[in-house]
Amino acid sequence: MIVTIQQSVMAEDEKYAARIRSVIREKKILMVNIIGSPGSGKTTLLESMADLVIARSDRFSFSVIEGDLETTRDASRLAAKNIKAVQINTKGACHLEAHVVERAFASLDLDSLDVIFIENVGNLVCPTEFDLGEDFKVAVLSVPEGADKPLKYPMLFFQAKAIVLTKTDLLPYVNFDSEMFKQDLHSLNPEAPVFALSLTSGEGVEEWVNFVAEQLKRKRENAE
Amino acid sequence: MIVTIQQSVMAEDEKYAARIRSVIREKKILMVNIIGSPGSGKTTLLESMADLVIARSDRFSFSVIEGDLETTRDASRLAAKNIKAVQINTKGACHLEAHVVERAFASLDLDSLDVIFIENVGNLVCPTEFDLGEDFKVAVLSVPEGADKPLKYPMLFFQAKAIVLTKTDLLPYVNFDSEMFKQDLHSLNPEAPVFALSLTSGEGVEEWVNFVAEQLKRKRENAE
Repeated sequence: MIVTIQQSVMAEDEKYAARIRSVIREKKILMVNIIGSPGSGKTTLLESMADLVIARSDRFSFSVIEGDLETTRDASRLAAKNIKAVQINTKGACHLEAHVVERAFASLDLDSLDVIFIENVGNLVCPTEFDLGEDFKVAVLSVPEGADKPLKYPMLFFQAKAIVLTKTDLLPYVNFDSEMFKQDLHSLNPEAPVFALSLTSGEGVEEWVNFVAEQLKRKRENAE
Repeated sequence: MIVTIQQSVMAEDEKYAARIRSVIREKKILMVNIIGSPGSGKTTLLESMADLVIARSDRFSFSVIEGDLETTRDASRLAAKNIKAVQINTKGACHLEAHVVERAFASLDLDSLDVIFIENVGNLVCPTEFDLGEDFKVAVLSVPEGADKPLKYPMLFFQAKAIVLTKTDLLPYVNFDSEMFKQDLHSLNPEAPVFALSLTSGEGVEEWVNFVAEQLKRKRENAE
């Protein structure tokens, strides 16, 4: 019952998603929808890019649309790193929807941006079902969550164009079956690259940034 | 829009919840709805109770209703510990609903049970909104998720009768502001006890089991 109803809401939202897609195509902006559990390291991933990306003029410029049920803590964290972020509070909703993202566009300087990262509400399930007009989704999974998550939450890991595995510095202290993780992920999504990140040491961040830069370059080449 | 629609679905579900509540009142069963993020340690918490509870005849008997989008991995983990578990696969739904829980009752021996634990789908948001007819909800938060979660996901932490803080053995390796966690939680829910658990060392499990036993005792005393 609920599925049918959500589909009609989603059909309405598809119009907004299409409009967003058209705007970012025109502005040659790459938009990435970042999805992961609460505390999987989504904000920390964005923070970690600040030094690598902002400090270097040959890299892309980016802003963040921050989705949270409540508080402006994540946007404040990013602001402290000189990352421009627009905070959306969903006031209880478990995911972002395209019409909300479109409203956030008004606070962004779309003419001077290369990349927009959307940090979705911390949730491995619901955000996956909503098209925000993004170029692609990225799944963020932290090592302490466990290697069984791809098969237990398959929709996200099936759809994601890339997987970011965070908190790899905790591998010595938790049970994380890397072999099972790789096999399960491969069975769902053999194409998606996995970026293993230790955000305490900074390991892996550069590869992730290079991946985003490559996606941006491809999008612009295809548009020509 | 979605809120209105969900409310009507939930009104329908409230009938099932009321029926469940009536059954467990009659059978003098305590039912606990366990809610937390993917990988927060809900299954491990249940596993850890096996030795303490099952092995001792003065303790309560319990079964588990396992909610997952996909796979029977969690029920298999519990079965390996001789814990009787009924696996529900929601096939994409982000939470359990009362009519599904009622169906699972058919697989439980309600006459011989003291406690039913429901392990909800890994999700800090949606499961909070659905009454399953339980006696109370418990919030499970793992240390690596971060101390900012109560204010970012306030509904659950506001409603929970108890908080289980898992993976405290990882405290030396992650940033977890225990003072902020306590203050934020107190501002939302000053009554709820916090059980700090290291499931690798077993620390804290006995206090948690005692809490459940006490709730069961109170329910039965109040019923007399």
